[in-house]
Amino acid sequence: MAVTLDSLPRLKSALGRVRPVDPDWRHRAEVKLANLTKPPNSLGRLEWLAARLCAIQETLSPRAAPRRIVVFAADHGVTAEGVSAYPSAVTAQMVGTFLRGGAAINALGRAASADVWVVDVGVAGDIDTAGRDAWFRSRRIRPGTRNITEGPAMSHDELAAAIDAGFDMADAAATEGVAVLACGDMGIGNTTAASAITAALARASAAEVTGRGTGIDEQTFLRKIDVVTRALRVNRPGRDPLEVLRAVGGLEIAAIAGAYIGAAERRMAIVGDGFIAGAAALVAAELCPSFLDYWFAGHQSLEPGHAVQLRLLRQEPLLQLEMRLGEGTGAALAMHLLSAAAAVMNDMATFDSAGVSRCREVIEPEAADA
Amino acid sequence: MAVTLDSLPRLKSALGRVRPVDPDWRHRAEVKLANLTKPPNSLGRLEWLAARLCAIQETLSPRAAPRRIVVFAADHGVTAEGVSAYPSAVTAQMVGTFLRGGAAINALGRAASADVWVVDVGVAGDIDTAGRDAWFRSRRIRPGTRNITEGPAMSHDELAAAIDAGFDMADAAATEGVAVLACGDMGIGNTTAASAITAALARASAAEVTGRGTGIDEQTFLRKIDVVTRALRVNRPGRDPLEVLRAVGGLEIAAIAGAYIGAAERRMAIVGDGFIAGAAALVAAELCPSFLDYWFAGHQSLEPGHAVQLRLLRQEPLLQLEMRLGEGTGAALAMHLLSAAAAVMNDMATFDSAGVSRCREVIEPEAADA
Repeated sequence: MAVTLDSLPRLKSALGRVRPVDPDWRHRAEVKLANLTKPPNSLGRLEWLAARLCAIQETLSPRAAPRRIVVFAADHGVTAEGVSAYPSAVTAQMVGTFLRGGAAINALGRAASADVWVVDVGVAGDIDTAGRDAWFRSRRIRPGTRNITEGPAMSHDELAAAIDAGFDMADAAATEGVAVLACGDMGIGNTTAASAITAALARASAAEVTGRGTGIDEQTFLRKIDVVTRALRVNRPGRDPLEVLRAVGGLEIAAIAGAYIGAAERRMAIVGDGFIAGAAALVAAELCPSFLDYWFAGHQSLEPGHAVQLRLLRQEPLLQLEMRLGEGTGAALAMHLLSAAAAVMNDMATFDSAGVSRCREVIEPEAADA
Repeated sequence: MAVTLDSLPRLKSALGRVRPVDPDWRHRAEVKLANLTKPPNSLGRLEWLAARLCAIQETLSPRAAPRRIVVFAADHGVTAEGVSAYPSAVTAQMVGTFLRGGAAINALGRAASADVWVVDVGVAGDIDTAGRDAWFRSRRIRPGTRNITEGPAMSHDELAAAIDAGFDMADAAATEGVAVLACGDMGIGNTTAASAITAALARASAAEVTGRGTGIDEQTFLRKIDVVTRALRVNRPGRDPLEVLRAVGGLEIAAIAGAYIGAAERRMAIVGDGFIAGAAALVAAELCPSFLDYWFAGHQSLEPGHAVQLRLLRQEPLLQLEMRLGEGTGAALAMHLLSAAAAVMNDMATFDSAGVSRCREVIEPEAADA
């Protein structure tokens, strides 16, 4: 069954409800920023962030909390080709570690005052769910995608179920008042899927968008480029983002795309993560350009394909810290900048209220008007 | 009286007590980082930060709190030359705003969970000290520096007093257990002084290191370059950092240099701010190369001279957000990254404790040893 928007009614109706943000709110925020006790634009990209946050929330007193990081986990049949430095079993093991609070995303989520949810949409192995340091939802669709060098990663209905799992998490977050949402990923082999998606949507070669993922040697790296090339040749997914996602994507990537569109529909600010979440952002932006009104490029990963994605999305990353972990860790770090931007809007005095003289350039035109 | 280290006994003895950090602690931190549940080095510069923090504190469980931002305020006689978009009166007005909690550094200090101290080391105007949203210390040495196009900014004893004010604030912070210290600045005209210091110490022309500060027009910008050139021609301070500081510096810049060296002496982690604090960092690093073991480049300002400073210091900034405000705002934003780095060291599990399989490259050498 071909993937079309008509065959995915929930996605179709959500796309119809994602509204572009009102530029008037952004303008009003810029006027307020110009009156705060600082030289005009002297807070640079923080002011840009603040104005965007105001436009999303339609307020001049935006909030950057509560915030949540939802990590979607799934396995990848393509690991049979030997594309990763880690065995597939690590996906389930790391989900257990998330639940016990010992992973990087737990540490950085706590540091960011964000709660961490973990959703199994397609892990192959057994998960030890005893840990209580992150919320857990089991929405396993199948035990990992099929090997994309042999055929499509998933069926139409599996794609629909994965996207729906993302929507459900966005809806739950909105219902609970979350203002800032990020999505992370866990899935051994998923940089291979993200490379294939990026190559297809950016019309780039596998070599341009494939990197070393968790840290593979030269021989594995060359094999990985070949695997991406073969996956695209076998599946011929064209340029339709949903068909690309179904053919060479991953269940966690599809779920992130669903959560992203659901979050934009529910007017949450969305903080992008690295290369895997970036592949979902490409899909979401192709389906719905207004999605980018809600999405911030949290950081730029070391994966070369992430730079390709950000160029295609025309977004500058907030952070560049040579990270390449995923899980939502880059987004977690960037969340602090949203808090800081909200604090500027909410906590600063204006020149008039503080009794501070304005700069001469500002004074003179006003005096001329008087 | 010529400025020499012998004429500044407190500075001299402090410099003798700044110890280089022990590289063995950094190595031990790197070993711990390699065993945490993430691909090796996948947290990039966050791991580098974590290892540096461990080396400063000589622990594998570093802390990034309590943290404090000390804003040193002073006026500049050179404003008589018409180098700023704002009148000098704004310095005192902004100090009042800091104390009432309405400035950018208040908003970003709160967002960073840092307390904010404000120290008057040379404000010219009257300060309304009624506000209680920041701690205030009056250590006014004189009402602003002299006009540096006519002679030295300050006398030997005034320089000594400004540096001592910085030492006192570092000592107070250390006594109160502060782990992370940043210094900010407030002083209309201080980008002119910072430009002159940077030109002298970087052997650069005024045009290479002078920017538009709070936002000046083209004519003022050209005049500012001429003012910096004249200040250096009139004073001929040479390359001695203390003589440069006395001749063309500022009282707040001297105080920051003192606080920086005092913080390194007391083994605090120091987060750098923008162009003004950067001029103090140049002085501190010239006096004491080990100072850089304790100092992190928090962000890169839009001021062109800041890039020159960071190149001279051989430091990569943690953040690049097109900011140019000073006050400690860039440092405040970067403090979150130190918290995140500490959280990685303190909160993450190891592969062994989490029961997660290592990557193949790591397993094999260990198996060979067994």
